[in-house]
Amino acid sequence: MHPATPCLIVDSQVVQNNLERMQTYADKHGLRLRPHTKTHKSIHVGRLQMELGSKGLTVAKAGEAAVMSNASSDIMMAYPPVGPERAEMLAELAKRIQLTVALDSEFAVDQLQQAVDRLGVTIGVLVDFDLGYGRTGVQSAEASVALAEYVERASGLRLDGMMLYAGHISGSPESQREQMAKVKGQVDELLTAWDAKGLCRDIISSGSTPSAMASHLVPAVNEIRPGTYVYNDMNIVRGGYATLDDCAARIEATVISAAVKDQVVVDAGSKTLTSDLCGPAPDSGHGYLVDYPEARIFRLTEEHAQVDVSQCERRPQIGERVSIIPNHICVCVNMQTSFWWSEPGEEMRLMPVDSRGLLV
Amino acid sequence: MHPATPCLIVDSQVVQNNLERMQTYADKHGLRLRPHTKTHKSIHVGRLQMELGSKGLTVAKAGEAAVMSNASSDIMMAYPPVGPERAEMLAELAKRIQLTVALDSEFAVDQLQQAVDRLGVTIGVLVDFDLGYGRTGVQSAEASVALAEYVERASGLRLDGMMLYAGHISGSPESQREQMAKVKGQVDELLTAWDAKGLCRDIISSGSTPSAMASHLVPAVNEIRPGTYVYNDMNIVRGGYATLDDCAARIEATVISAAVKDQVVVDAGSKTLTSDLCGPAPDSGHGYLVDYPEARIFRLTEEHAQVDVSQCERRPQIGERVSIIPNHICVCVNMQTSFWWSEPGEEMRLMPVDSRGLLV
Repeated sequence: MHPATPCLIVDSQVVQNNLERMQTYADKHGLRLRPHTKTHKSIHVGRLQMELGSKGLTVAKAGEAAVMSNASSDIMMAYPPVGPERAEMLAELAKRIQLTVALDSEFAVDQLQQAVDRLGVTIGVLVDFDLGYGRTGVQSAEASVALAEYVERASGLRLDGMMLYAGHISGSPESQREQMAKVKGQVDELLTAWDAKGLCRDIISSGSTPSAMASHLVPAVNEIRPGTYVYNDMNIVRGGYATLDDCAARIEATVISAAVKDQVVVDAGSKTLTSDLCGPAPDSGHGYLVDYPEARIFRLTEEHAQVDVSQCERRPQIGERVSIIPNHICVCVNMQTSFWWSEPGEEMRLMPVDSRGLLV
Repeated sequence: MHPATPCLIVDSQVVQNNLERMQTYADKHGLRLRPHTKTHKSIHVGRLQMELGSKGLTVAKAGEAAVMSNASSDIMMAYPPVGPERAEMLAELAKRIQLTVALDSEFAVDQLQQAVDRLGVTIGVLVDFDLGYGRTGVQSAEASVALAEYVERASGLRLDGMMLYAGHISGSPESQREQMAKVKGQVDELLTAWDAKGLCRDIISSGSTPSAMASHLVPAVNEIRPGTYVYNDMNIVRGGYATLDDCAARIEATVISAAVKDQVVVDAGSKTLTSDLCGPAPDSGHGYLVDYPEARIFRLTEEHAQVDVSQCERRPQIGERVSIIPNHICVCVNMQTSFWWSEPGEEMRLMPVDSRGLLV
């Protein structure tokens, strides 16, 4: 079966392998796995993760939490619940599922408290602490204690612990060991400060796929929430954390022009692949052509990918279908309304990208 | 009314002004206007364009043609109809609307002919000629004649003329005048070659918003298909082709964190704004904060925009809503499932982005 291009095709067996590998790691080290569903945005895939042993799921949006409540009744939103619609949707959802959110401000606490108070529900809270990525999160152990105490005083909110994000940690296993030793020092300082005040830190959650399998190097971490590992992409491959064979999701595209010398054009542009470059190799182009490793996608416009084929011994022909591993699969999946699920021996099935394009 | 953030809000009055300005230009120079709907992907906006005098609409995908047939019965696909699903959908559509496609290969002619033959319909064809942008299009006058003759011989296909794309033409009015003089030379050569063979060139179509109002400098051009002008964006503003006040579509976002020094984080990340940089000013950041011109969105991750506010006299506060003009509105619109249509004196209305996320 050949669905119209461009389209996203997901190989169920590679997904299964990726999920099992991470679950095995988590089990071996006594870590709860709570995958971030931002990558797949699929209830079906979320259920697979739960069936294999995940403790719950992670989301970035309140609407995603609502969608993913079809796969798990234990959801963490790794995003500040700021904005009244966000807080209200979470409170509504907390009527029927176990919900935890991460935040880094008293403002967020106040706004969430108003929403939960109105509905008489309880939501768990993690204090977001910045390990050095510099995006969100309180900046010192003292600030984390102050915010944790503020949460403790807020009716309807339950202090559950802290959220960390290791998005800045990358590199070889040796390099990661050094970086994680520093993280361990940061976390130990937090624990000392929290324990001195008797603050609840049942959950110490860490994130990111590249750092996931170094999580045990910070023994206090007891929960991890990698996302990209389910499909992998060229960021992960070129970063050295997975192989091409571990990439479960590929864009299938058609060569629609070969009029310009040493170039073919395929129908997967920035509205399919997105303009995200490959972090570890920004000059490697806009994705990897599986059957033409010497080809380079050097320019994307909305519906066109211009591919330099001057280095290819054999060149793709007009009308030919090619397979592309995207640089960043999370944003690529988010472009699609649906994807094709490929299981061995079965017709491919079209599945919705359930939690993309939500209003809240 | 304050819809949940992030969301896209379109100002109907600015749209009206933008549409009128382009229609007036086209009318003044006797050009048929056939706007590219890739920017708005909205039947409603397509209808506005038709009501103001557009001759028809332009699309990039066969599915978009089907959707936009709700706004116009005269549609041009500025994209090669390669791939059997694409050709078949077009042939099906040609049963009920006037359809023209652009192509640059005999392969595309053959595949389209098979589809139209099966259904006994006729589709108009423009030969795509490359003016120098280097993406698609035949590379010489001789090649254009050969392909035009190939189209003439194909049953069910009607040679209508040629498609040009001036995506590489930019700069000041003086600079554009020079560049368009060169284009005029290219087109004159094409016309001489086509006329020597008596080939039909009823339609000579040119594209791109930056070059649109220089189209009359190539007198043979009789149809233009700008897209971005309907909303405009920072590419257009920083290129010097429109002002901030001409930007009709803005992302409304909420400040969700202010934990890191000299930074706020808003909830419009790459899954809202896309990672597209501003072509004329790649270092200007990921969009323009209307009320904080000194602020700079220096990093996007999927749901976070990190904004450097160190240069701001007054800084946005946590919980505050801010308005962002995106770098590239076409891809930004394509991220959204729907948008808010704002008319003076009326409640905002939620409208679908009708032709996004299509399978063909």
